[in-house]
Amino acid sequence: MKRIGMLTSGGDCQALNAAMRGVVKSLVNSKEDVEIYGFLNGYKGLIYGDFKMLTGRDFAGILTVGGTILGSSRTPFKTIKDPDENGLDKVEAMKQNYYKLRLDCIVILGGNGTHKTANLLRQEGLNIITLPKTIDNDLYGTDMTFGFQSAVDIATECIDCIHTTAASHSRVFIVEVMGHKVGYLTLNAGMAGGADIILIPEIPYDMDKIVEAIRQREANGSRFTIIAVAEGAISKEDAKLSKKEFAKKREKLSHPSVSYEVAAGIQERTGQEVRVTVPGHTQRGGSPCPYDRVFASRLGAEAGKLILEGEYGFMVGYRNREIVKVPLEDVAGKLKMLDPNATIIQEAKMLGISFGD
Amino acid sequence: MKRIGMLTSGGDCQALNAAMRGVVKSLVNSKEDVEIYGFLNGYKGLIYGDFKMLTGRDFAGILTVGGTILGSSRTPFKTIKDPDENGLDKVEAMKQNYYKLRLDCIVILGGNGTHKTANLLRQEGLNIITLPKTIDNDLYGTDMTFGFQSAVDIATECIDCIHTTAASHSRVFIVEVMGHKVGYLTLNAGMAGGADIILIPEIPYDMDKIVEAIRQREANGSRFTIIAVAEGAISKEDAKLSKKEFAKKREKLSHPSVSYEVAAGIQERTGQEVRVTVPGHTQRGGSPCPYDRVFASRLGAEAGKLILEGEYGFMVGYRNREIVKVPLEDVAGKLKMLDPNATIIQEAKMLGISFGD
Amino acid sequence: MKRIGMLTSGGDCQALNAAMRGVVKSLVNSKEDVEIYGFLNGYKGLIYGDFKMLTGRDFAGILTVGGTILGSSRTPFKTIKDPDENGLDKVEAMKQNYYKLRLDCIVILGGNGTHKTANLLRQEGLNIITLPKTIDNDLYGTDMTFGFQSAVDIATECIDCIHTTAASHSRVFIVEVMGHKVGYLTLNAGMAGGADIILIPEIPYDMDKIVEAIRQREANGSRFTIIAVAEGAISKEDAKLSKKEFAKKREKLSHPSVSYEVAAGIQERTGQEVRVTVPGHTQRGGSPCPYDRVFASRLGAEAGKLILEGEYGFMVGYRNREIVKVPLEDVAGKLKMLDPNATIIQEAKMLGISFGD
Amino acid sequence: MKRIGMLTSGGDCQALNAAMRGVVKSLVNSKEDVEIYGFLNGYKGLIYGDFKMLTGRDFAGILTVGGTILGSSRTPFKTIKDPDENGLDKVEAMKQNYYKLRLDCIVILGGNGTHKTANLLRQEGLNIITLPKTIDNDLYGTDMTFGFQSAVDIATECIDCIHTTAASHSRVFIVEVMGHKVGYLTLNAGMAGGADIILIPEIPYDMDKIVEAIRQREANGSRFTIIAVAEGAISKEDAKLSKKEFAKKREKLSHPSVSYEVAAGIQERTGQEVRVTVPGHTQRGGSPCPYDRVFASRLGAEAGKLILEGEYGFMVGYRNREIVKVPLEDVAGKLKMLDPNATIIQEAKMLGISFGD
Repeated sequence: MKRIGMLTSGGDCQALNAAMRGVVKSLVNSKEDVEIYGFLNGYKGLIYGDFKMLTGRDFAGILTVGGTILGSSRTPFKTIKDPDENGLDKVEAMKQNYYKLRLDCIVILGGNGTHKTANLLRQEGLNIITLPKTIDNDLYGTDMTFGFQSAVDIATECIDCIHTTAASHSRVFIVEVMGHKVGYLTLNAGMAGGADIILIPEIPYDMDKIVEAIRQREANGSRFTIIAVAEGAISKEDAKLSKKEFAKKREKLSHPSVSYEVAAGIQERTGQEVRVTVPGHTQRGGSPCPYDRVFASRLGAEAGKLILEGEYGFMVGYRNREIVKVPLEDVAGKLKMLDPNATIIQEAKMLGISFGD
Repeated sequence: MKRIGMLTSGGDCQALNAAMRGVVKSLVNSKEDVEIYGFLNGYKGLIYGDFKMLTGRDFAGILTVGGTILGSSRTPFKTIKDPDENGLDKVEAMKQNYYKLRLDCIVILGGNGTHKTANLLRQEGLNIITLPKTIDNDLYGTDMTFGFQSAVDIATECIDCIHTTAASHSRVFIVEVMGHKVGYLTLNAGMAGGADIILIPEIPYDMDKIVEAIRQREANGSRFTIIAVAEGAISKEDAKLSKKEFAKKREKLSHPSVSYEVAAGIQERTGQEVRVTVPGHTQRGGSPCPYDRVFASRLGAEAGKLILEGEYGFMVGYRNREIVKVPLEDVAGKLKMLDPNATIIQEAKMLGISFGD
Repeated sequence: MKRIGMLTSGGDCQALNAAMRGVVKSLVNSKEDVEIYGFLNGYKGLIYGDFKMLTGRDFAGILTVGGTILGSSRTPFKTIKDPDENGLDKVEAMKQNYYKLRLDCIVILGGNGTHKTANLLRQEGLNIITLPKTIDNDLYGTDMTFGFQSAVDIATECIDCIHTTAASHSRVFIVEVMGHKVGYLTLNAGMAGGADIILIPEIPYDMDKIVEAIRQREANGSRFTIIAVAEGAISKEDAKLSKKEFAKKREKLSHPSVSYEVAAGIQERTGQEVRVTVPGHTQRGGSPCPYDRVFASRLGAEAGKLILEGEYGFMVGYRNREIVKVPLEDVAGKLKMLDPNATIIQEAKMLGISFGD
Repeated sequence: MKRIGMLTSGGDCQALNAAMRGVVKSLVNSKEDVEIYGFLNGYKGLIYGDFKMLTGRDFAGILTVGGTILGSSRTPFKTIKDPDENGLDKVEAMKQNYYKLRLDCIVILGGNGTHKTANLLRQEGLNIITLPKTIDNDLYGTDMTFGFQSAVDIATECIDCIHTTAASHSRVFIVEVMGHKVGYLTLNAGMAGGADIILIPEIPYDMDKIVEAIRQREANGSRFTIIAVAEGAISKEDAKLSKKEFAKKREKLSHPSVSYEVAAGIQERTGQEVRVTVPGHTQRGGSPCPYDRVFASRLGAEAGKLILEGEYGFMVGYRNREIVKVPLEDVAGKLKMLDPNATIIQEAKMLGISFGD
């Protein structure tokens, strides 16, 4: 008999349900008896003992459904060790609930923040298995995270739509793509959507180079330019600032995001009309793409296998086309970023894409 | 022999190419010899004699392609009678180009603004046929415009994506839908996406009623609320202001659009986190949906028929499931709005949708 | 207090759930107390008393979900008056279950066959409201049925996919579209997908004319031809046969459907390679398109209204852009077909589409 | 100055245009002068000197367009050394056209058959670069081929549609997926679509096991079963036959494909109604998915790089997330198949999927 807890934490994304279904199906199809405790709304459910018991039937038919049937919330690692507003020790509370339910393991699905807390719980002695969930693909220790390809698909579709309008109106169009502090999502959606300029955090941009690229296109007879801007893109000058100085500078700006800053810069220098589109949270939603469904199901199945074998303290990741177990201490607190000299960046440049550098 | 001019004006939308293909195919398939002059970038092309000659072959394969192969631009009716920066009389210039090319007719595809200028040209003696293009569906004299259903599809997909995220995070989500000063697009996308609250210009909203609807949902156990807000939505107080007072008030606000105003109001009154998503120009782009392809092709074919019969001065419209010709003077300068007591609004209310009234 | 039965019968289609949700939401949002009895698997559930009680909550979140939460089955009208294999009088059994549960009304969602039985039950004294469900759009008394536009979308997407392959390989491609004995679905998908030839039951085809159209395209430099064939398409010779003779002839053929017959005919006469694609049941499935979601929701809401007003014996239909109630006796046993001289057919011909006539 | 030939051969697939665009963009963006000769309709164009000269402009806007702007055809390797019907030596003719145009290299996009001929041309002394094109993903020497993921997406969408119908009608549904003699496409689409049973060539099936799996589902309360059958799936008995015996046996069968054989077997043993859907060529068509657009663009860019460096005789492939060059002699004549014991197969089994073995 295995008693398994499960929770989804952080911003939701596609294929969370597919991954959980994978875990549960692989357990239910084994010879082991299993009890599943689904904690609601991320770590909150574990802290406050808010859960429901689930059976295999609860996970039927959710392979294709976006979001998470357990609900999610952001529970910042920074304050996880602080008592809550009623003085409750949150870490202690999670441990107590774990022991009270006599759990064998908790399966935690989340991104970078989630993994810090997951590793803390592991250090506190709990059995933890994690699954790499994020549309940003910025988790250390795995080549790929689920949610990423689905988000690429949505952001690309958005660029596709903008393309026809941009071409009809001879305008510069900016599409702001999610991705937090890394550029994977923007780079892939930008390349897939045929963006002419791609701005990512890993390659700080120079406004002059952007304008140069636009002018070059005009000189070649192209009547419009599409720019994919990562929400975390940053200018060369800003990249030199300290975190504090940068935050201060941003505060003073009226622009709601970096895309509007880039737009203003281009408009100022070229006189051209620039339009900004921000697909925002749509990039996290909807049915997972087939790639993510297969990928998340596979990760889930392997998590089930680890549980059956009693191997804990790992994230189930993906490296060199193999599904691998990665020690949680190797994942937590690290950020996977794009190498500015990565082959894919060089290839994008060969294709004529400017990175504003 | 018929010599036909053609131009697309105003914001682009889906199925412009499909409509033009319809006109040209029906002319080319007739026994009449035809020459097609495509004016580039809307009325600008007609004013400055910027055109290219086109054959049936130029219109092959564009049925499914968004945007317009002729390019478009906004040429405000307000200033159409003013000379341009070089002192050119724009109306006179259009007439001269028309006569110089010995055109039998110009086919003009556009929305409300476009139709004002088209009617002016008709009054000036030119032969004009127009086609009703707008994602807003606000053209007088026709039940439907092409672009509308495609935009509904995109806005709905956006709400679908937001739905999974909203449900996972127990939040209030606002999706701002286009539609200019009318609510058709928001109403249809909102109903198709299962929005709980829909705010449209035709029904000024009361913030208290919105908050009441959110609280009612909470009381019924629903953990999230989706609000579809038309870009032209307006509060009851603002609806009482004069145009000038309203413009002044808006200027002072830091909110980039009404959605953010609604979001701030909800946040203030309920303390709930509210997220705004603005799909923006994506609603105009991408491949037209099958409905629009068929509809625009049919309108185009009928425009071709009118040309062959030498019947000018009409918009080809759609009424009671029949394609009809509507005198341009009956279309120009009028706005088709939703009746706040329309059956569809009553039905939406029966379904439990709040309009904040 | 209202006690309402509900069932879905015949081939399933998109927006069945949306329509039922509309009925239930409008009832639940009224001041009336309501009990909903969902009969399972079509008339079978009513015959054998197989039902479950449902609340508003069962209909939450199903607006976008294809299929029917009640299940469906085909219960042929021909044999409805015959006893079942255990000697049960089916009509009597349905009446008894209706009275035993003290129902005020049964809401029946279905197509042509379903309406015959629904009308029979009305004649037997039961209170019936029906909703027009079919991808074929062949129901008498309504301009539109739900499921139709969603099926058009899927069939069109299929033709779109085939288009790129056909163009790359210079081949003749046939896409067989559903639609039972009428051509609405094929005509609309064919026009939307840019088919060159469209074969529908209402216009029997002549193989020589089809070959002529293909040759004409070749002469004009087109390297491929796309043919949309309705599953009910018929040749001029076969159209002259009696029903019996036709059935006999078909039996002898090795071709699984008319598309293969057309393909063989073209191959024989032109030597060209012809490929047949049959999307089949995919046309009934998947999430309903936004048009169908809105349309089915509206019909459902109006059905709820009729129930609250105690008006029974009607199909809720759609005519001239108005939602109307149509007496069941005017619907049952009739087939709505395309008029071969309908405006849309003429327009399709103006666009250069051949109907093989 | 580089003079480059280019051709696409074999069944078309998504992202052929994207790949060619990648090659041409990377060449045009280099400092080298380049002339591009596009041979039409596969090897035929090279044999008969049927080509057109292309510039960078011809490749603009085709990133998202399915099919191939060069056209394709199947030119069987078996007969490539035989003279054509006019006695022309085809291999010699290709060489002569190569030398006549003073080409530096031919870029050949194709699958298994194409690579055999490409390698032959290399042996004959021509400079060849190939790109791995096939929806089957069965090319040796590369982990991935372009077209594959797009085909997975389409086949999955098809299974998604069938799912709602199957669930509504309590039926067994078979979806026949392409993939030639290997199971990658079926396995991935099957897993993504939530198929209950997956039949692939690499794991011959046992009808008894299939029936057992269906009965097991019924016993667990599932009212329907979805089976994804690869077009190359084979029964255990048939797998024992020689190629000749197998061909003979198939000839005698009236079933158009293995799916119908499986369907008949299930119907016979269980009495259940089984429906077969064959999406067919739609799996090759339509706009490439974002994954394939990025992947094909990258491969194309790297092909351009090899050309600029004068490195010939390679296929540009993908191994362990790196783009690599694979000697043509290592690719030609080999088939990449799924290992029946591959991790992904084991994971699929953990998820409860039956392979009928």
